Amino acid sequence: MTSELKPKIVVLGAGVAGLTSALLLARTNLYDVSVIGKFLPGDLDIEYTSPWAGANWMSFVKDDEVLERYDRITYAEIARLAKEHPEAGIWPKKVIEYVRADDLIKNNPLLGGLLDARPWFADMTPNFKQLTPAEMPKGYVQGITYDSYCFNPLIYLPWLVSQLLSHGVSVRARTVSHISEAFAHHASGQPAHLVVNCTGLMACRLGGVMDDKVYPGRGQTVLVRNHAPAMYDITGCSDADDELTYIMSRPAGGTILGGCYQKDNWNATPDPNMAQRIIRRCLEICPELESEGKLDIIRHNVGLRPSREGGPRVEKEKREEGWVVHNYGAGGAGYQSSYGMATHVVELVGEALAS
Amino acid sequence: MTSELKPKIVVLGAGVAGLTSALLLARTNLYDVSVIGKFLPGDLDIEYTSPWAGANWMSFVKDDEVLERYDRITYAEIARLAKEHPEAGIWPKKVIEYVRADDLIKNNPLLGGLLDARPWFADMTPNFKQLTPAEMPKGYVQGITYDSYCFNPLIYLPWLVSQLLSHGVSVRARTVSHISEAFAHHASGQPAHLVVNCTGLMACRLGGVMDDKVYPGRGQTVLVRNHAPAMYDITGCSDADDELTYIMSRPAGGTILGGCYQKDNWNATPDPNMAQRIIRRCLEICPELESEGKLDIIRHNVGLRPSREGGPRVEKEKREEGWVVHNYGAGGAGYQSSYGMATHVVELVGEALAS
Amino acid sequence: MTSELKPKIVVLGAGVAGLTSALLLARTNLYDVSVIGKFLPGDLDIEYTSPWAGANWMSFVKDDEVLERYDRITYAEIARLAKEHPEAGIWPKKVIEYVRADDLIKNNPLLGGLLDARPWFADMTPNFKQLTPAEMPKGYVQGITYDSYCFNPLIYLPWLVSQLLSHGVSVRARTVSHISEAFAHHASGQPAHLVVNCTGLMACRLGGVMDDKVYPGRGQTVLVRNHAPAMYDITGCSDADDELTYIMSRPAGGTILGGCYQKDNWNATPDPNMAQRIIRRCLEICPELESEGKLDIIRHNVGLRPSREGGPRVEKEKREEGWVVHNYGAGGAGYQSSYGMATHVVELVGEALAS
Amino acid sequence: MTSELKPKIVVLGAGVAGLTSALLLARTNLYDVSVIGKFLPGDLDIEYTSPWAGANWMSFVKDDEVLERYDRITYAEIARLAKEHPEAGIWPKKVIEYVRADDLIKNNPLLGGLLDARPWFADMTPNFKQLTPAEMPKGYVQGITYDSYCFNPLIYLPWLVSQLLSHGVSVRARTVSHISEAFAHHASGQPAHLVVNCTGLMACRLGGVMDDKVYPGRGQTVLVRNHAPAMYDITGCSDADDELTYIMSRPAGGTILGGCYQKDNWNATPDPNMAQRIIRRCLEICPELESEGKLDIIRHNVGLRPSREGGPRVEKEKREEGWVVHNYGAGGAGYQSSYGMATHVVELVGEALAS
Repeated sequence: MTSELKPKIVVLGAGVAGLTSALLLARTNLYDVSVIGKFLPGDLDIEYTSPWAGANWMSFVKDDEVLERYDRITYAEIARLAKEHPEAGIWPKKVIEYVRADDLIKNNPLLGGLLDARPWFADMTPNFKQLTPAEMPKGYVQGITYDSYCFNPLIYLPWLVSQLLSHGVSVRARTVSHISEAFAHHASGQPAHLVVNCTGLMACRLGGVMDDKVYPGRGQTVLVRNHAPAMYDITGCSDADDELTYIMSRPAGGTILGGCYQKDNWNATPDPNMAQRIIRRCLEICPELESEGKLDIIRHNVGLRPSREGGPRVEKEKREEGWVVHNYGAGGAGYQSSYGMATHVVELVGEALAS
Repeated sequence: MTSELKPKIVVLGAGVAGLTSALLLARTNLYDVSVIGKFLPGDLDIEYTSPWAGANWMSFVKDDEVLERYDRITYAEIARLAKEHPEAGIWPKKVIEYVRADDLIKNNPLLGGLLDARPWFADMTPNFKQLTPAEMPKGYVQGITYDSYCFNPLIYLPWLVSQLLSHGVSVRARTVSHISEAFAHHASGQPAHLVVNCTGLMACRLGGVMDDKVYPGRGQTVLVRNHAPAMYDITGCSDADDELTYIMSRPAGGTILGGCYQKDNWNATPDPNMAQRIIRRCLEICPELESEGKLDIIRHNVGLRPSREGGPRVEKEKREEGWVVHNYGAGGAGYQSSYGMATHVVELVGEALAS
Repeated sequence: MTSELKPKIVVLGAGVAGLTSALLLARTNLYDVSVIGKFLPGDLDIEYTSPWAGANWMSFVKDDEVLERYDRITYAEIARLAKEHPEAGIWPKKVIEYVRADDLIKNNPLLGGLLDARPWFADMTPNFKQLTPAEMPKGYVQGITYDSYCFNPLIYLPWLVSQLLSHGVSVRARTVSHISEAFAHHASGQPAHLVVNCTGLMACRLGGVMDDKVYPGRGQTVLVRNHAPAMYDITGCSDADDELTYIMSRPAGGTILGGCYQKDNWNATPDPNMAQRIIRRCLEICPELESEGKLDIIRHNVGLRPSREGGPRVEKEKREEGWVVHNYGAGGAGYQSSYGMATHVVELVGEALAS
Repeated sequence: MTSELKPKIVVLGAGVAGLTSALLLARTNLYDVSVIGKFLPGDLDIEYTSPWAGANWMSFVKDDEVLERYDRITYAEIARLAKEHPEAGIWPKKVIEYVRADDLIKNNPLLGGLLDARPWFADMTPNFKQLTPAEMPKGYVQGITYDSYCFNPLIYLPWLVSQLLSHGVSVRARTVSHISEAFAHHASGQPAHLVVNCTGLMACRLGGVMDDKVYPGRGQTVLVRNHAPAMYDITGCSDADDELTYIMSRPAGGTILGGCYQKDNWNATPDPNMAQRIIRRCLEICPELESEGKLDIIRHNVGLRPSREGGPRVEKEKREEGWVVHNYGAGGAGYQSSYGMATHVVELVGEALAS
């Protein structure tokens, strides 16, 4: 089928959701895909959330088959990439998770599957193991470890663009103020048949969408040059209810020390005191960070997770101008669910264009 | 030859010079290469100059065979990449250059080959042509056009890292305060046999180097979402002696509007008034920028060209700890000379390790 | 009465509301006042809204006696200061306001009294006059002018601190996470009898207050070195529903070109495209800005007006630890209502401590 | 004498040098003074160095009668201000200085009078005392203490503007690219008879001056909300040759923790690792910082001391357009020498206009 005959699709948004959706759509060879984004990989802006992510696969899904499927599909694909395409900026890293007694007792719903001693993926992730008390630092009552993967978003997002360029997909910087405008931005110059809405956090301000369930989950991190042997994660934190502790060493990058989850907080300025607390907590849990020398800070980051009450929105909608398939609202799961959500997008696009 | 037997090389610096040097060294399959950098692709810091570049191939060499060779080798390689590897973030773009009468009369040495009606590459670049008065806007007395290439550094630098990862080269964030320390940072944990010094502008502060010929050539640009049909360049500017006018539309990126060359100016803050002048000048020379809508600014940038009095330093030096091959000081020619300079580095490494 | 015997008051917040409240309380000579603030005059942080204000007196009250009183009291006091204390950073400036037909027709409630041809203060402000069509640029259907005042917040806020220092009031940087903690921060080391809550926008996050009616009204401005002969204000804007046009030349400062009012938008980064629109609109309405030379931009600003649904909260509340008098939520009227609101605070403090 | 008959003076630069010079000139009642500055109090820009200062009086003059006079005059005036004008933002604070053995042995010329066990001002500053070993922390071999003063520049600079406004001096934002242009910027609209050049660091780039002896002495500090009982200063530092340790608690401000002196370094971005070292060193020397709670960081600062080889330039120069009196290059002594240098300016202005 020549490009002229293929249905024309505009993917709106060039974060991990948009780029992955575009890539899976392009791989079907059924569509003529264009990506437009207010920001593109390489940009660093507080509205553009993907580059600020850690990022890794550490599912916190609990009792939700749709979300489990998203994370399962993604795990399989990134395992393949890490093995066959080291250039993608994904590498294998063991997860080590410790649970505080306090968090188990309170059973904080935000922590979801992180509180499960045997989460849904226990049989899927190699080397899954429950930690014994002897294997955990003092003060933790539960722990697990399993083989997983860490992304370097600053390599992986440009790599996704590279893949799109290889497939002949146009990726351009464009702003739209209403979802309807996106139909007019296909690279062919012709109107698109369908728009995939991957606007993430900005879905709350996009004309025609204005999704008021979308809100920021502010995260602050410290990027350091040191290396950690594994990815660490602690449920909860005694410093503050909205602070967390996690560590991720990126391939061809530094190590992310986190963090926090501050609902509805849009402040893009790093809080210097929180930075000090994050550093202290991470060194407590992983003193090996300093094994090759003192902590060497690259910079302080703030990113806004594109969260959504009720979970992500992956669904199709018929509008006057044509079909829209929405794919946004993944919160902190944007990378670990990306291929699953994009697979769902491909299914919905097929249904929509068949109708 | 197994990795253990290969000479160990640390490339210090992860800008375009360091990454290209590492790539060409890795491709020889003769060396075990590690890259360390204070900053890595994805970082945006004023000390890290490569991500702020335009960038393109528009040689301004005049009467210098060494530099001509650098640019010639690079032209050939990026022509190949643009054709065979669109994922690298390089695409073909025509150069259109206009010369002001004033600049011809003054014969400003900084403009070098840009003032030549028939520069050294006239027979090398396809579709080279001297412009007739009818083909130029009023006010210009000379002009040329030829086929060339534009890089998107925000895709191309991560792509270079991807290539290194494919070759098994370790790329890590590390700081050293003295060139000698670099020998201790090979990923193998063993001392390196040779260090390639690609520290760019920071060569002026690196212990053991402290090259006082190195200085910043400050550039300020406006990144817009609009597209230009060609790459434009004007010699000189009536607004100020240290301002320039150029336009580069990047693949999978926005368009860079420039600019200036301010010697010895380290100020990282965009000058808001210069930004207005740049916008005005670029719209004068290329009104097509607004053909699809008003100018849509992404952000204002400042980058520091790693310039050096007397030109780049590509040479080997025997130090107590071992050989150092220097590769820095390319100024505004960092991308267009990158493969040529790295080829020279490979030659010098061979000579050094053979001795 | 010696300081030891005076009731101890902590004013929480060092914006214009907190500093003015503290000053009027100190002037009574009845209280021992301390001011604590997360930020203090001289700081520039997006959470600290006062320094980003224009600021001037241009009341937009409509049919609200309480708010009219606030603005009336303030007008009288700043008139006195401008005359007797030029060092305060307030000077007389004529207001010129133009109304668009469209805004009159829509009768946008946000514009309030700005749409009145004869607003409540017509008999109070000297030289009040309705403009004739000949006195207005084309396209406007109504206009008024009157004598008013412009503040330079960067001089006026430090001047308020100076006045407090003269009165022996302690002004210190302190953070509290709950309103109750403030009682423990009196400079005497003893618990305070009363806390005045002037936390502005942050009242939405302060423990024990968490006022969900408080929201940001984002404003963006361009600060230029040029001078305008009067303060200009246009209702509405054809560029966007949430953009405005206004001009204020500050004493011993530059000139503020505005602006916008973006509800619930916390983005601290200046939008470079809005900046271009603001500049264009202000030059249209006041070409005299360029009378002494081209527009000379100092910087682009973003500030968040501390708005509140239902208007400001000035009221007393009995809490376990003691009385709290609230004074926040003035939105864009913070300066022009400051002495009126602080007068109300003094009244409420008297009532509370008498009870 | 009416204003029209007074000689017209333009002070170029609105840092501490310019504002103090203007104030002392205005106080003579002999001149009609205007101040213009690229930046004005309230602005925070890396080119505008005064707001980033600590600042205090801690003379480090050694064997230089001119500089001693500058510091002596200033000490007397700020003692008066601290007593009679608390609103100026200057308060009394004891200096405590510790000297490392290493620094005494090396006799680093940069430390100047700081290494003197009995500096020139020992008989001038009240309560001067040499510390006994028992009065110093371990590791120091010499120490002194004396009564001195701390400025809050964020209050003091606006206060200087306030004083100028009281004297009817115009203070405006203006940029000039050549010293000659300044003659045309008197507020009267008439040409100035004399220009006082107080451009500080920017004297190295100002047309007609281009003083290549001027260089930045980069300082980095941490501003915290905590309070220190005295001003501390340590000669030298084992962390790095260009790092220092000092503490200053500002009136109506936070506390500055310093620092460093990095010659010829223009980088405006705080180094996050140096920030950690500064915090550690300051807590070691003054654990009382945490007496009321954990360290509470407001922000990280970078400022560039306007240093000059050979010391400050205070001299008159006859130019075609008229007399220029230069007053710049005070380095880290800008505040503590301000009244002395401005007194010298008044003398030179008198000489120049008499000639």
